[in-house]
Amino acid sequence: MSRSVDLNADMGESYGAWSKGDDAALLDIVTSANIACGFHAGDWDVMAETMAQAVAKGVGIGAHPGFPDLHGFGRQRMGFSHASLGNLVRYQIGAAQAMARAAGGEVRHLKLHGALANMCSEDEAMARACYSAAMSVAPDLIVMVLAGTAQQRAAEALGCKIACEIFADRAYNDDATLVDRALPGAVIHDPAIAAPRIADMVEAGAIIAESGARIPTRIDTICLHGDTPTAVQIAGSVRDELQRRGLELRMFD
Amino acid sequence: MSRSVDLNADMGESYGAWSKGDDAALLDIVTSANIACGFHAGDWDVMAETMAQAVAKGVGIGAHPGFPDLHGFGRQRMGFSHASLGNLVRYQIGAAQAMARAAGGEVRHLKLHGALANMCSEDEAMARACYSAAMSVAPDLIVMVLAGTAQQRAAEALGCKIACEIFADRAYNDDATLVDRALPGAVIHDPAIAAPRIADMVEAGAIIAESGARIPTRIDTICLHGDTPTAVQIAGSVRDELQRRGLELRMFD
Amino acid sequence: MSRSVDLNADMGESYGAWSKGDDAALLDIVTSANIACGFHAGDWDVMAETMAQAVAKGVGIGAHPGFPDLHGFGRQRMGFSHASLGNLVRYQIGAAQAMARAAGGEVRHLKLHGALANMCSEDEAMARACYSAAMSVAPDLIVMVLAGTAQQRAAEALGCKIACEIFADRAYNDDATLVDRALPGAVIHDPAIAAPRIADMVEAGAIIAESGARIPTRIDTICLHGDTPTAVQIAGSVRDELQRRGLELRMFD
Amino acid sequence: MSRSVDLNADMGESYGAWSKGDDAALLDIVTSANIACGFHAGDWDVMAETMAQAVAKGVGIGAHPGFPDLHGFGRQRMGFSHASLGNLVRYQIGAAQAMARAAGGEVRHLKLHGALANMCSEDEAMARACYSAAMSVAPDLIVMVLAGTAQQRAAEALGCKIACEIFADRAYNDDATLVDRALPGAVIHDPAIAAPRIADMVEAGAIIAESGARIPTRIDTICLHGDTPTAVQIAGSVRDELQRRGLELRMFD
Repeated sequence: MSRSVDLNADMGESYGAWSKGDDAALLDIVTSANIACGFHAGDWDVMAETMAQAVAKGVGIGAHPGFPDLHGFGRQRMGFSHASLGNLVRYQIGAAQAMARAAGGEVRHLKLHGALANMCSEDEAMARACYSAAMSVAPDLIVMVLAGTAQQRAAEALGCKIACEIFADRAYNDDATLVDRALPGAVIHDPAIAAPRIADMVEAGAIIAESGARIPTRIDTICLHGDTPTAVQIAGSVRDELQRRGLELRMFD
Repeated sequence: MSRSVDLNADMGESYGAWSKGDDAALLDIVTSANIACGFHAGDWDVMAETMAQAVAKGVGIGAHPGFPDLHGFGRQRMGFSHASLGNLVRYQIGAAQAMARAAGGEVRHLKLHGALANMCSEDEAMARACYSAAMSVAPDLIVMVLAGTAQQRAAEALGCKIACEIFADRAYNDDATLVDRALPGAVIHDPAIAAPRIADMVEAGAIIAESGARIPTRIDTICLHGDTPTAVQIAGSVRDELQRRGLELRMFD
Repeated sequence: MSRSVDLNADMGESYGAWSKGDDAALLDIVTSANIACGFHAGDWDVMAETMAQAVAKGVGIGAHPGFPDLHGFGRQRMGFSHASLGNLVRYQIGAAQAMARAAGGEVRHLKLHGALANMCSEDEAMARACYSAAMSVAPDLIVMVLAGTAQQRAAEALGCKIACEIFADRAYNDDATLVDRALPGAVIHDPAIAAPRIADMVEAGAIIAESGARIPTRIDTICLHGDTPTAVQIAGSVRDELQRRGLELRMFD
Repeated sequence: MSRSVDLNADMGESYGAWSKGDDAALLDIVTSANIACGFHAGDWDVMAETMAQAVAKGVGIGAHPGFPDLHGFGRQRMGFSHASLGNLVRYQIGAAQAMARAAGGEVRHLKLHGALANMCSEDEAMARACYSAAMSVAPDLIVMVLAGTAQQRAAEALGCKIACEIFADRAYNDDATLVDRALPGAVIHDPAIAAPRIADMVEAGAIIAESGARIPTRIDTICLHGDTPTAVQIAGSVRDELQRRGLELRMFD
């Protein structure tokens, strides 16, 4: 059982005149930031600003590429060949690397966004196409994967450095998949429930399903959200509870 | 007087289902390719394909960033702060670097596109904003500048490595500015005129104006076009004439 | 059996600095034009120009809405709610109506494009969402449907005026579906085969499958293509053959 | 002096996953809504939703076209030919008409947005290009113009129905132009100042400059903002003050 864990959240999701999320608040909570790369959200200025803040606060920078779907915020499932997926991922990582370098930082990790991430958690070949493209550009990148999914299998098969992630605010089934959002209790809105539950999981080194079943799992990082006031509150509570139990909060290696 | 010169052309300007230009033909003529970076033209797949071809043919790869103006092909003059301009340029260079790396090559030079280039040939502070942003990401980049303009002055003031460019198909005024496109003879369409004229300039180390006046100029590279069959013909004729006169065609250093 | 038939083709698919297809040639062949509405192709100027030419040549104007997918040319399958699909279709039809009015014409028909059309030929509820939205904006629109598909069923169920379409260059299976593009002979490239085959179908009032089987079908219009020189040649041959057999070529009512 | 006046505000400026402004609050205050048409802000769903709400609350619907500049929110000055400007405006008005019709309403007025509006308040020929294009599509549209600018002159020269607008929160110079935003006091943030000042102007039938000078002006409508909590507060205060003084708030004719 690890005595340290990373906290991550998506960030830099504003675009032009539209802002989204409370990045300033989140950056005081997380240890790693997944920064949108301009395809589903974010733009050159938002990326620059978000990376500068992450560097200033000592938060690890991750490239967070998504589908080229600004209107749908990267949530549209799209059909690209594996070659195109690779190019999509390379392009966004390269852009993120340049912005990070100019901000005095570097891109440490990769996390896929939205429908791209969902499809890659189901389709190992697709995940491999994305991750191997990433390796061709940045071989030292740590790949953040959703624990127990095709993402993890693909990254392990490629020999990538990985960081395994669980969700702070989602209930799990006995097979470690997420409870369907349509079902009651699938999304946890109460910080008083979310925080101790996640701390239990980290201490146990296991996903604890709704049923109470424990699925031993590598847990390197916890995914927090910041797009609503409640989400930021949950994020803060999870942080506080982990610290109260003596767990160290720091970036994964 | 230099006995070698580079030939450059814009490339990778297709987008999705739309193709543009005859890149395959141009890549057999030029020694350096200015590859669009996805803001005014080009996309992740077009970039990957164009860079792979450039690597295969031993053509130097340049990042060719433009304004975020797909509909206007980067020809709309746009008003961005210097900070935003810097971010725009960094983002596109970073993306190009990743695509080049994956293709087994590297980005050797930078050339600004369209309205961004035009504005920077008039406004030294704006050019400095772009070039210093480029240096913050890729300090060894060679900056391709339009000879005698604010672009050249900005790049020199920053201490950048530079490559000075003249146009193969444009007439010059006595002060080294381009003859207004609205005037007769401003654009040269006849390969039999364009080719010896350019060869004379390279041999003389001077821009030769319409009047015959010679303006001593550093000439490192000649800008060719490939967006029409005539343009490709001029490009080929320029190459042939330079070789006939014993000039070496190779990438600038 | 009808002694007249309409010829239709997609048009106005250029975008900004990128041109596509030979609209001028096609407008001399077809009697109805399906004009892109700016989401998957076309822009305000391309629409205006294409509609002006259609009016000048007496060709019927159709709105040809697609998914908001410029990069993918509307060929990405996308998941929108029926309410959103309705809004997408309404928006594009309204834009087309304004452009047609300003050109001295009017939008006579509707034809869905690309992945939107493909999905609606398989999913009747989706087709109904699109067509009923169209009716809410333009109740007199003639809906061009792919004969024998869910498109036709949806338009008939809604009581729309319809025009049933067959393809000039695609082979058919015995159940009136198209032969899979991956199979040999699925796409017909030889004008000498395409033209008499289509003329036979129109005279027979039936789709004639690859096997020779005849499936009685309402045939109001024939879909031609113009995106390659061969396609324009097939289009011209089909027109010539129909006229040679004494069939009248005119817009459907 | 008129005993009635209209209150207008920009609305429907959300886009995809990004929301902007408090349209619900504004729709309880204004009598006319300027609804973004998808080029600088708004999308098919946002337009549908905003128009449905406007119809439900009896608020007049206006098309609010802008430059095709989503990233810059239509605030980039762009150079289009008059023909293209006309097409831009027609396209957006047509889309708005369809969305309004489907919502059970109609587009009553036109107001240009952002940089397009600013440029047309300085350039009468440009304003004429936009307004005459609008008339070619919707001859009965009421053109909302910034009082005393080239917008007003152009609309009057074309014989359009017009509605003259003043700003609730901007100080005026003695020549009826707006005080430069860079100067102190240019933007009024205090509802206690803005409300009586505007009511005085409406009662006087004159713009009252910072100096106290009165410039007799046709005042049909007052432009309110809703993009900040303060802006909504000012909007409400203006409405309250006008009603307190017995002025009728209703759509212009």
